[in-house]
Amino acid sequence: MQVQVISSVNEASTAKFHHKTAIIIDVLRATSTIISAIEAGASCVLPAETVMEARALHRPGDLLGGERFCRKIAGFDLGNSPDEYNEQNVAGKRVILTTTNGTRAIHKSMRADYVLTASLLNAEACAKAALDLRRDIVLLCAGSHDEFAIEDGLCAGLVLNKLIELGGAPIETDDFGIAMLALYRNRANFIKETLLSGMSGKRLCKLGFKKDVEACAAIDVYQTVPRLNGDLLTRG
Amino acid sequence: MQVQVISSVNEASTAKFHHKTAIIIDVLRATSTIISAIEAGASCVLPAETVMEARALHRPGDLLGGERFCRKIAGFDLGNSPDEYNEQNVAGKRVILTTTNGTRAIHKSMRADYVLTASLLNAEACAKAALDLRRDIVLLCAGSHDEFAIEDGLCAGLVLNKLIELGGAPIETDDFGIAMLALYRNRANFIKETLLSGMSGKRLCKLGFKKDVEACAAIDVYQTVPRLNGDLLTRG
Repeated sequence: MQVQVISSVNEASTAKFHHKTAIIIDVLRATSTIISAIEAGASCVLPAETVMEARALHRPGDLLGGERFCRKIAGFDLGNSPDEYNEQNVAGKRVILTTTNGTRAIHKSMRADYVLTASLLNAEACAKAALDLRRDIVLLCAGSHDEFAIEDGLCAGLVLNKLIELGGAPIETDDFGIAMLALYRNRANFIKETLLSGMSGKRLCKLGFKKDVEACAAIDVYQTVPRLNGDLLTRG
Repeated sequence: MQVQVISSVNEASTAKFHHKTAIIIDVLRATSTIISAIEAGASCVLPAETVMEARALHRPGDLLGGERFCRKIAGFDLGNSPDEYNEQNVAGKRVILTTTNGTRAIHKSMRADYVLTASLLNAEACAKAALDLRRDIVLLCAGSHDEFAIEDGLCAGLVLNKLIELGGAPIETDDFGIAMLALYRNRANFIKETLLSGMSGKRLCKLGFKKDVEACAAIDVYQTVPRLNGDLLTRG
């Protein structure tokens, strides 16, 4: 099984996803939020690329969520903190979510046979789900401001490590995958510290979201693997 | 001191080099060859972007060197194997060198205040030279076919590690730098194996250049740090 790792949305061309399983990673915070929302019982998450598109998709009873410049959007119900997406807020609801990088990454990968979302919160469950789908895999690190983000690379390395450990099929990866695997293995005991050392982690701390960074550093706390069905992310 | 790490020539815009020291890394094989040539007494190496440009620059007594698709160019004196650039072949000579990625990387960085060339062969000497120049640093991984190459990332991580160890000034790096440092630290005892696991290493082995890959895996065997002076790379 081939596993390609793409360093940021900027590097992703739609052609790379043909006949593959895409795994979208935006640890801080889009995919961590999506996984938390589905885990908490949201009926689905609908990723929207723009604020205007999000508003247009909104129907009575839906929740509008997302961020621009890390902050909640004016008039929206929820921001982009995973802990806002708890059972009380989201159970049974449709969530329209627009974030700077994560939702763009999901849109880029729509040509894939399957699109899964991963973060540190569900890495093992996501690796298992991807193996079951029996396609070559593209791990797409969303990144931040069109640049590589350390937390997404770390998560790609963790998912690769899980794919190898699960041992269903021999895993071959590219040079960037080899690097991300080594990154994860070197930093496995310093996950939170690594998230806090990166640009996104520092920016979130500055804006008062340190607890989000810490919450997103937890590994394998959820079994939920949100999967794209048409335009909707639902429980896999 | 800020140290930025760029993942491939493709990602390098000339604006990123303003007022900086650029360190160009193309472990397999351009910068390993350039360092070997200057170490062996070549008077200078003149990087040329195209075969035609290389031929046009050639004057009596010069050596023409380089590769396309890893192989020696028809009519050229030398290929791109570091061990061809020994004292017997190159002492006192001007070498015109054109390679697929390395020379492009050097041309991209010409706006920098200083341009140094690094490989595993001279990593520590290069880190020392860069510290002495007292500018922020851009480590440019040349990569291969416009993609990240593991051997260049490994070398960037090694140079970063040396910069930190030498401890002249506090070193701050970006997310990609953090990742490359972790890559190096995880693979420090498996340098040769890491080079052989990457795309370039595999391609070179297939074409009969395994001994080049092994030779390029040696760390800190030379003190020479070729530096760009005008259009020429000379002993730093």
